[in-house]
Amino acid sequence: MADLVESKPLSGFLDVLPEDAAVFERAVDSLKAVFRKYGYAPIDTPCIYSYETLTGGKAGVDKQLFDWRKGDEGGKHIALRFDLTVPLARYVAANFQKLTFPFKRYDVGKAWRGERPQKGRYREFYQCDFDTVGTTAATADLETALVMADSVAAAGAERFVIHLNDRQILNGLLESLGLLAQSEKVLRVVDKLDKIGEPGVRAELTQAPPVVAGSQDEVGLGLSQKAADEILAFTSLSKEKQGDDLWKTLEERFSSCDRARKGIERLRFVATGAANLRGTERFQVDLSIARGLGYYTGTVYETLLTDAPEFGSVCSGGRYDDLASSYTKQRLPGVGASVGLSRLLSALQKIKPEASVATPCPVLIVTSQDVDPFEGVRIADILRRASIGADLFPQAIKGAEDSSKLGKQLKYGDARGHSFAVIVAPDELVRGAVSVKDMKTQKQDEVALEALASTLRSRLFP
Amino acid sequence: MADLVESKPLSGFLDVLPEDAAVFERAVDSLKAVFRKYGYAPIDTPCIYSYETLTGGKAGVDKQLFDWRKGDEGGKHIALRFDLTVPLARYVAANFQKLTFPFKRYDVGKAWRGERPQKGRYREFYQCDFDTVGTTAATADLETALVMADSVAAAGAERFVIHLNDRQILNGLLESLGLLAQSEKVLRVVDKLDKIGEPGVRAELTQAPPVVAGSQDEVGLGLSQKAADEILAFTSLSKEKQGDDLWKTLEERFSSCDRARKGIERLRFVATGAANLRGTERFQVDLSIARGLGYYTGTVYETLLTDAPEFGSVCSGGRYDDLASSYTKQRLPGVGASVGLSRLLSALQKIKPEASVATPCPVLIVTSQDVDPFEGVRIADILRRASIGADLFPQAIKGAEDSSKLGKQLKYGDARGHSFAVIVAPDELVRGAVSVKDMKTQKQDEVALEALASTLRSRLFP
Repeated sequence: MADLVESKPLSGFLDVLPEDAAVFERAVDSLKAVFRKYGYAPIDTPCIYSYETLTGGKAGVDKQLFDWRKGDEGGKHIALRFDLTVPLARYVAANFQKLTFPFKRYDVGKAWRGERPQKGRYREFYQCDFDTVGTTAATADLETALVMADSVAAAGAERFVIHLNDRQILNGLLESLGLLAQSEKVLRVVDKLDKIGEPGVRAELTQAPPVVAGSQDEVGLGLSQKAADEILAFTSLSKEKQGDDLWKTLEERFSSCDRARKGIERLRFVATGAANLRGTERFQVDLSIARGLGYYTGTVYETLLTDAPEFGSVCSGGRYDDLASSYTKQRLPGVGASVGLSRLLSALQKIKPEASVATPCPVLIVTSQDVDPFEGVRIADILRRASIGADLFPQAIKGAEDSSKLGKQLKYGDARGHSFAVIVAPDELVRGAVSVKDMKTQKQDEVALEALASTLRSRLFP
Repeated sequence: MADLVESKPLSGFLDVLPEDAAVFERAVDSLKAVFRKYGYAPIDTPCIYSYETLTGGKAGVDKQLFDWRKGDEGGKHIALRFDLTVPLARYVAANFQKLTFPFKRYDVGKAWRGERPQKGRYREFYQCDFDTVGTTAATADLETALVMADSVAAAGAERFVIHLNDRQILNGLLESLGLLAQSEKVLRVVDKLDKIGEPGVRAELTQAPPVVAGSQDEVGLGLSQKAADEILAFTSLSKEKQGDDLWKTLEERFSSCDRARKGIERLRFVATGAANLRGTERFQVDLSIARGLGYYTGTVYETLLTDAPEFGSVCSGGRYDDLASSYTKQRLPGVGASVGLSRLLSALQKIKPEASVATPCPVLIVTSQDVDPFEGVRIADILRRASIGADLFPQAIKGAEDSSKLGKQLKYGDARGHSFAVIVAPDELVRGAVSVKDMKTQKQDEVALEALASTLRSRLFP
């Protein structure tokens, strides 16, 4: 016999066991149902692209790419997608004439990054995105907030808060401080507030910039203490005030700043409307969130689980000015978000471990070695036709070597977590009946075949 | 402005448009529901493996692999999976202790082959597999046939026939002709019957073998005309006889061949049981099907659409002796099949083109520029809370530049195929009402907001 080959996945790649895969699949199905209810349509995009298409001709992402040359030396340079946003951007550009705008799509699929694997960070992972492309209208921002709330709830979360902000307001602030040109860098530092706290952010804002531009630890921005004070005081404003109080303060402060006023008007529409429809406890204006990505230009969203904030945001997104400027001259503003499904499910597992048990089907059919094995298939089929999931422990044709005793079959049912076992044995079968065993209480009774589906349905869904 | 970057997919890769993606997703959901009803559980496996794991240490598949070295020269040789069977085999070996056997799993995911792209053949494609691993019991073979029938029906096919055979019977025939040692080669030729017909198969069976063993066109097997006659006569036996007639003929012919008799007993159990539960028109014993893969050792299955046989088998599979011999010493017999979903959906589109239109949600909300845009969101939300899918055409905050006229909004509804439009305008809104427009008949009437959900439900699902 040849030597055995390694069967384990590569480092950073994951085998998902059936119980976990069932929980994941159920969550994805729930999310997709929410997206569809709001009029988003599914699309499917390739996982592999030319290197140039994937990087949009820019540098920066390439260190983390799974990329290679296909064919002989000098062959085509191709790479695996690292998110679902670049595939969306180029999809919209490539299929512009075939799509209807505003274009609302969702996409759930795998992406890859060659990062060093860490706990909870994999090289292959799922992304779950929804976007409305081709509109600057504020109702799209409000609906995005509602889809986020409904999605996170549909995945099983009970207590969570969606934090809302608008980058236009932060940019208005920076404009008033004469710092608009440095906006992207400043907001990337502000975005670290939840990770490194006020002292850390203050330090990064005020420290001297690195001598060599673009060096590894490009931290200090060299702002004045006064500017840092203003920025930090502003971002904590929403901790002290919410609702009308906050709106009044913001409107007064920015009465002469057009940029900020537009942001305030939109944020107020989104926050007020969302709270009106889903409750004030679900939404919170949070002037400290900026999202790291430079690409966002308006509303930004983050979602924190009340009972597991340490997991970070489980659903985030924002409004952007132009989705696909690398691929088309058509300007495509839009708004969208991404559900961090793996993170969300890990957090939910921590919050309520018992809720994540999933059996693919509730009933197991076991058959005595003395009955025609076809009887087991026939009885399982009665339940399946009645839309009751039924697993049949495989049984061999009489006399064949692979037939199994009842005890072994019931043990399989225990391991799989079936709720009921239907025992098919000769004595009862001649009376047109089977035994139904409650796997939890171990209680067992005889049920006529005609009544089997209705009996099990009433016991499963009392 | 920088030059634009190419946005089109690579050759052999596909952008799936929303309408097609919706049809595909609905079909996948239906198939998964069937699998779960039979007790199969989902799993998820990585797409990337070490080259050695993926090839099982064997040669042969590597010409079609997407493979590369990660990292610097001499880095790890890795590759993308080319099917879901190898990932299953290594998954079962790697997680043997954590799984319950018989292990029933389904897996729907992408795989990649570096083939030359042709019409209907892509380099990136979906596979949809279900398997029962760890049993030789015949009820598993019978249930596989039922799952195939229910899956193909759930995907939307009405008229189709599942062809059944058992490789043990063919091997018994070859044994009786003294050709058992050449079984794999002979069956690979017999498998071409539907493509090259009897004359072609006869030619390949009888022509002289190539002078250089293993040469490119290794066709001729050099069998005698008499052997070819026997093989071709046997494989067409099931065209003349079915049912008891066929079983009697087979049993008489192989009364002294143990190998064939076991195959006949199992095939009879599967074919008779399946016909009993799903109708005789659904199943047909077909002694001419062998499946090309050497890996099958027992029952084999193929599914032909009655109205589009030219698409070939849309769901195929078989029983195997040992799933994971490259990875574990544990012997793992099993049985499973694969739904050729892309092929099946293409065929169904040809059979009934009109059936494949899909709207993500049936209702579109349009709002007059004179109403508070929040009203549109609120009214859409009434429907969504009542589980009626409602798309809202985005509307800007009053006075903003991105507000749209009703005519433009209704045109979007036409393009997207919504069934009804709900028109939110000031006059009706003050009366607590909206207009509901049937997009097909263009008829329009006023409906009170309290009655909106119930009215639309009764019009959508009369």
